Amino acid sequence: MLVLITYDVNTETAAGKKRLRKVAKKCVDHGQRVQNSVFECLLTAAQYVTLKAELTALIEPETDSLRFYRLGNQYKQNVEHVGVQPAYAQDSVLLI
Amino acid sequence: MLVLITYDVNTETAAGKKRLRKVAKKCVDHGQRVQNSVFECLLTAAQYVTLKAELTALIEPETDSLRFYRLGNQYKQNVEHVGVQPAYAQDSVLLI
Repeated sequence: MLVLITYDVNTETAAGKKRLRKVAKKCVDHGQRVQNSVFECLLTAAQYVTLKAELTALIEPETDSLRFYRLGNQYKQNVEHVGVQPAYAQDSVLLI
Repeated sequence: MLVLITYDVNTETAAGKKRLRKVAKKCVDHGQRVQNSVFECLLTAAQYVTLKAELTALIEPETDSLRFYRLGNQYKQNVEHVGVQPAYAQDSVLLI
C-alpha cells in the first residue's frame, strides 16, 4: 500500500536540525521524496508498523510531529501534482 | 471528500516568500492546517476544482509545487498522527 508520510520537525535548535536529518534519512531509505517534508512509501502492513515505530523514536513528541496517510493500492488516480517535479535524489538528505 | 494539500514553495527570493504567504493564506481559508505545509480540506468536487485552479495560479510552476491527494470520505481510519498536535489557528498565516 502507499503510505504518505509528512513531518514537521522543530529546527530551532541544533538537536532539532539533527532530528530533521535523521527523519529525512529514514524516509529517504523507505520511499520517494515528493516534496521537502513529504514522502510516498510503498510498504507492506508489517513494514509500515516498523517504519512508524522507527520514526516515532526519532522525533521529539513535544515539538515535532509525523502524519501517516494510508492511501491503499488504488491511489494513482487520486493524486495530482502541479508545478516543478520532485528532483530529490533517493539518497539525499534534507538541507535547510 | 477530504483533500490533502501539500506544497513546496521556493522562498529564496522575496517574490517566493510572497507566493508562500498567498498559498498558505488560500489553504487556511479552505481547510485545517495540520503541519506547516500540509492542509486537510473538506471539499465538494466543485470546490476542489476551484481551489486547485486558484492555488495553481498562485505558484511559480518552475520552482514551486502543489500536490493534491483525494482521500475520499472514509479517511479517518487511514490517518495517524504522532507527536505534537497542530496548533495553527485557522486564520493564521505562515511565518517562516
